[in-house]
Amino acid sequence: MKIRFTKMQGAGNDFVVLDAIRQTFALTTPQIRFIADRHFGIGCDQILVVEKATRPDVDFRYRIFNADGGEVEQCGNGARCFVRFVHEQGLTHKRQIRVETTSGIISPQLEATGEVTVDMGQPRFLPAEIPFISENDALVQTLVVGDTSVEISVVSMGNPHAVQVVADVDTAPVARLGPLIESHVRFPRRVNAGFMQVLDAHTVRLRVYERGAGETLACGTGACAAVVAGIRRQLLTSPVRVITRGGELTIAWNGSDSALDSVLLTGPATTVFTGEIDLPEDFK
Amino acid sequence: MKIRFTKMQGAGNDFVVLDAIRQTFALTTPQIRFIADRHFGIGCDQILVVEKATRPDVDFRYRIFNADGGEVEQCGNGARCFVRFVHEQGLTHKRQIRVETTSGIISPQLEATGEVTVDMGQPRFLPAEIPFISENDALVQTLVVGDTSVEISVVSMGNPHAVQVVADVDTAPVARLGPLIESHVRFPRRVNAGFMQVLDAHTVRLRVYERGAGETLACGTGACAAVVAGIRRQLLTSPVRVITRGGELTIAWNGSDSALDSVLLTGPATTVFTGEIDLPEDFK
Repeated sequence: MKIRFTKMQGAGNDFVVLDAIRQTFALTTPQIRFIADRHFGIGCDQILVVEKATRPDVDFRYRIFNADGGEVEQCGNGARCFVRFVHEQGLTHKRQIRVETTSGIISPQLEATGEVTVDMGQPRFLPAEIPFISENDALVQTLVVGDTSVEISVVSMGNPHAVQVVADVDTAPVARLGPLIESHVRFPRRVNAGFMQVLDAHTVRLRVYERGAGETLACGTGACAAVVAGIRRQLLTSPVRVITRGGELTIAWNGSDSALDSVLLTGPATTVFTGEIDLPEDFK
Repeated sequence: MKIRFTKMQGAGNDFVVLDAIRQTFALTTPQIRFIADRHFGIGCDQILVVEKATRPDVDFRYRIFNADGGEVEQCGNGARCFVRFVHEQGLTHKRQIRVETTSGIISPQLEATGEVTVDMGQPRFLPAEIPFISENDALVQTLVVGDTSVEISVVSMGNPHAVQVVADVDTAPVARLGPLIESHVRFPRRVNAGFMQVLDAHTVRLRVYERGAGETLACGTGACAAVVAGIRRQLLTSPVRVITRGGELTIAWNGSDSALDSVLLTGPATTVFTGEIDLPEDFK
């Protein structure tokens, strides 16, 4: 089965994007794994399938599959690539697009710069919402990690984050402390560990040790969590440019102690190449 | 600059193959690194550039670049992909092709099965040729590694190999012993450590801990070295099928104690997909 595809990346998180509107195909789990394999297939973090909407009030539907074949609910970097894709392919001319996903309707926006803005939802701060074991909901909490202690702020962006401010992200002990914080007994569902260096009120550098993945090139929810924590601690003022190893993201949040405002993430989405692959029908 | 490319793999060693005969381009080192990058570019172990011959007695010339941009001399897996590529693209109908490489002329052969046979050169066994520090040139040598000792045979296929026979490659301590053998004081230029399980006289399973690279999916010279050592130890009879994690290779060698015969490696080469990429002209 021959299918055409587009390879895209957003801040280093990379996708094989498949147009299921102008071509018809059904993928088996082994075929999804094959596509994602970096040595035997095309290679990507995730596969994004763009489909026709199933209801009249939305423009498209899309589905995201992990490299292991499992379907996932949401992905900020994927939503940005989706918007660039439907524009570059001429599938729509709207700049604000309503999209059905497995986790509900989202409305990403194509900016004049070519970047895309995605609503990342409202942050949560209460220890029980993280979840984080603590006797109080102080903005800065002391976490004892091995023979040292670190000052963290906890934020949930749907997933849990522990953000600390460091003097220099290049020399920050991400590899050593990351796994210890990730699996700390006070985070019953583990946690993403963020290390943020504040350059000025509108600019930070960030590294994130992701839960179950180790340090990654860029973590969208990690950038949101870090900026929200920095704004609440009055170190930062919205909007904030976040410099990661995979690229730069811009985070805007109008909230303070209230969690009622959504966090908006604006970032790049780039088409790397287009291709055609003849997918094996069966696998050993 | 837009260029068309073909992504290929041979036993899991993967290549971006560029036709420099029907399209004209010059690649800078940052562009080569970009092409090889698995998240921001196309992604591959090596880039293979197919060019017109510069002399009348050969059919083509080809060059191989590593992911870091450096040019390399030889690659058995790359030569197989090259042969499949020039046939699939209709650039030749010859089955035995004479090719200029940086290290001399090679004559790979397209088999009726679609696999390709490459002459891997003559093996060398003398300790000084490996190099290996030893008082004798015995076929089996005892190497003390940490608190254990292993029985190895040393072979040079242009690069040094230390092959040991194990009962089961799946449970062999490749990750633990590999780096210790690789950097053992008796191998002044380090060594590739092979772990071979003999299934029968014509079939082995093999894992190789490669010098400077760790365990890899398939190592062409490692397969040659393992089979040559097995034939010399009268455990194997040519030809021998070598089952690696990346795929299967067939090694033929008519020698015994004499090193005068070349080792022939036959293996698969597969086109995975074709594509077009717009290469950035400059990089930050």
